[in-house]
Amino acid sequence: MRMLNTPLSLRLFIALFRWTLLAIPVAIATGSAVALFLWLLDVVTRIRWAHEWLLFLLPAAGIAIYFLYQLWGKNSEKGNNLIIDEIHEPGGGVPKRMAPLVLLSTLITHLFGGSAGREGTAVQMGGSIAGMFGKWFRLTENDLQILLMAGIAAGFGAVFGTPLTGTIFAMEVLTVGKLSYKALLPCLVASIAGDFTCAAWGLHHTQYHIHFHTAPFQLAGLNLPLSPLLLVYVIGAGAAFGFTAYLFAESVHRFKQLFNRYVRPAWLVPVAGGCLVIVLRFILNTPDYLGLGVTSNHAGGVSLVNAFTAGGADSFSWLWKLLFTAITLGSGFKGGEVTPLFFIGATLGNTLAILLHAPVDLFAALGFIAVFAGATNTPLACTVMGVELFGGEHIVYFAIACFTAYFFSGDSSIYSAQRKGIPKLFH
Amino acid sequence: MRMLNTPLSLRLFIALFRWTLLAIPVAIATGSAVALFLWLLDVVTRIRWAHEWLLFLLPAAGIAIYFLYQLWGKNSEKGNNLIIDEIHEPGGGVPKRMAPLVLLSTLITHLFGGSAGREGTAVQMGGSIAGMFGKWFRLTENDLQILLMAGIAAGFGAVFGTPLTGTIFAMEVLTVGKLSYKALLPCLVASIAGDFTCAAWGLHHTQYHIHFHTAPFQLAGLNLPLSPLLLVYVIGAGAAFGFTAYLFAESVHRFKQLFNRYVRPAWLVPVAGGCLVIVLRFILNTPDYLGLGVTSNHAGGVSLVNAFTAGGADSFSWLWKLLFTAITLGSGFKGGEVTPLFFIGATLGNTLAILLHAPVDLFAALGFIAVFAGATNTPLACTVMGVELFGGEHIVYFAIACFTAYFFSGDSSIYSAQRKGIPKLFH
Repeated sequence: MRMLNTPLSLRLFIALFRWTLLAIPVAIATGSAVALFLWLLDVVTRIRWAHEWLLFLLPAAGIAIYFLYQLWGKNSEKGNNLIIDEIHEPGGGVPKRMAPLVLLSTLITHLFGGSAGREGTAVQMGGSIAGMFGKWFRLTENDLQILLMAGIAAGFGAVFGTPLTGTIFAMEVLTVGKLSYKALLPCLVASIAGDFTCAAWGLHHTQYHIHFHTAPFQLAGLNLPLSPLLLVYVIGAGAAFGFTAYLFAESVHRFKQLFNRYVRPAWLVPVAGGCLVIVLRFILNTPDYLGLGVTSNHAGGVSLVNAFTAGGADSFSWLWKLLFTAITLGSGFKGGEVTPLFFIGATLGNTLAILLHAPVDLFAALGFIAVFAGATNTPLACTVMGVELFGGEHIVYFAIACFTAYFFSGDSSIYSAQRKGIPKLFH
Repeated sequence: MRMLNTPLSLRLFIALFRWTLLAIPVAIATGSAVALFLWLLDVVTRIRWAHEWLLFLLPAAGIAIYFLYQLWGKNSEKGNNLIIDEIHEPGGGVPKRMAPLVLLSTLITHLFGGSAGREGTAVQMGGSIAGMFGKWFRLTENDLQILLMAGIAAGFGAVFGTPLTGTIFAMEVLTVGKLSYKALLPCLVASIAGDFTCAAWGLHHTQYHIHFHTAPFQLAGLNLPLSPLLLVYVIGAGAAFGFTAYLFAESVHRFKQLFNRYVRPAWLVPVAGGCLVIVLRFILNTPDYLGLGVTSNHAGGVSLVNAFTAGGADSFSWLWKLLFTAITLGSGFKGGEVTPLFFIGATLGNTLAILLHAPVDLFAALGFIAVFAGATNTPLACTVMGVELFGGEHIVYFAIACFTAYFFSGDSSIYSAQRKGIPKLFH
């Protein structure tokens, strides 16, 4: 006889209830922190736009961030990797101070024109807050791991307004090629509650639209659900997105190595990085690759939003943003990699679409999600992100682009703490 | 120094190319078989509608199916479970004869009014065809496992016109609570190519529409992305869908046990089942619970499509369909469980929506995917199926319903060969 747990057992209700109660305070605190962060990020970006000379203080700002972490950082400099490590092998825990430190240093980075993102900040605030609550609740090691994953989900879901993506991202990012539903319920609850909280504070997320529509395709009298030519283009673009993800992850690692090898003393590293950013900004004669890059403050500027229209990006915008971001993050500034990855992907998608005479908005969207998928090895979360940001019509293209990018990003990852689970290809 | 596989290695291209070449013939053969099957299924359903007396031959049809499998079946009677077992622990292989046998016996079941589905048939044809090609290609054991998964993906993607769902289903169904990307590329290629092939043969899939739209919700001056009341209803409905999935899986198992214990000789089992179906059909005085049930041949009939409108289902339609299907499949008729699960879920969703004054089309859609998610422990595939069938707007509700149903279906599954990977809840 099979042994069955009846689904209406008291045990199930207690477990569901307990995890909901544990996840919700973490999510409300994280969602609120993310709301504050997004609001301040908007404020500092406007200040930087109004006072372009702030960029010249970027090297000095780098020194400030360096000493901030040296003096008060403990191990929080490790950032996202620390949280991933603590989930895999619980050690000293995620320190409370990580949240305010990463918030402050990210704002400094953005105020003075460093090219960085925001998901790292949100995820680190979520992890740090989860670690704090975990200590208060006196959780076991196993429960704390689950709550840390919920913290990641809450941060991610809140910062991009994509609750389901946050849930899957938290489960998928830990190990390449494997996914376990162990922390599913707390992650789902935390991500939805985090998004709710952030929205309740009045935060709005950028809206993107794809105007291109798929029509059934006729080929030699046969009805096909998709255009085979477009399918081939999407696969090709996916490979390019994956290779770009590899290039990005490698560039950040290599810049970090180079800076640390050739620049002494260590506090001069962010000075060198800041100076390089300034020089590049004037060589290219545009401020478009500084800061977050979601929108631009001047007409015709290259930005994440403008990449969805023809002419909204230059042919090499993706490469410049890659360079600006690799220098910024490789020299110790703070923020995240994800919004720059969106920018790099969307502008590369724009460029590829124009080369291939393919729909620009669709390819910008594909690059947006697929470069990120390749760089973090989270193709499923990124496919779902495509649906949450751009709607469900093109889900098959989203999946093809994200999974192709996953294969073509090699064994690279922006998170060095990510474990290798399953090799990407068997043969 | 970290060791890196560069993403542009020849090894990667060869592996991608090899698996694409292996998966495509399996997918084309499976997609074609599924197209033939869907066309014949439509033909036999129309014949049954035109000749209601065929139902009286259902017991005799059951005997025919019984001897078909006794004489020529070898181990193909085990159906989907055999394929799952062969992927986990390769043994005697999946026999070629499984494909024609399941095709023929499913058509017999539907012609004479048994209540069954079609995904089992498609998946078994896919698995059987993959096993055949695997032998021809002289694959290693490990490669054959991957190709069998691709066969499942091709069958599933083709039969419902949902290529991404087919891909994820094939990876998610093997083990509860875990997912590995080992077979991702072959599954994705096979599922898309299977869907393409089926569409190229001119097959159309039923279109469903949700007219309900989510609007941002105002509560005490706060802007929320979703209505909290609707969220609570969706969670409650998800629990009901999960419990119904449990009830279904248990009923099929129990009917099988009861029939085999009390009915002798064994060939009388389908006679008993067939007679019970006839009796029930006349007690309820409706043919709506016979056959596939996607559409109805009379105005006001209960069907899967009609369940999306108020008045399209009776309060206990879900229970009747559950009973008809458990008797049909429990007594040895062939087909699949999934379309009946869609029917049970959609009609239960209809009933719950009317009770709760919630949107009927949304709740029918939630039941459609969530009962299936609970009964097969594939919540991620079912969430994606929601997007592929109904669009992406309600993806968060889809996920909440499917994952809640997953938790509330207990340790039950319609596939007894499915392995238990991760317990659904930690204490």
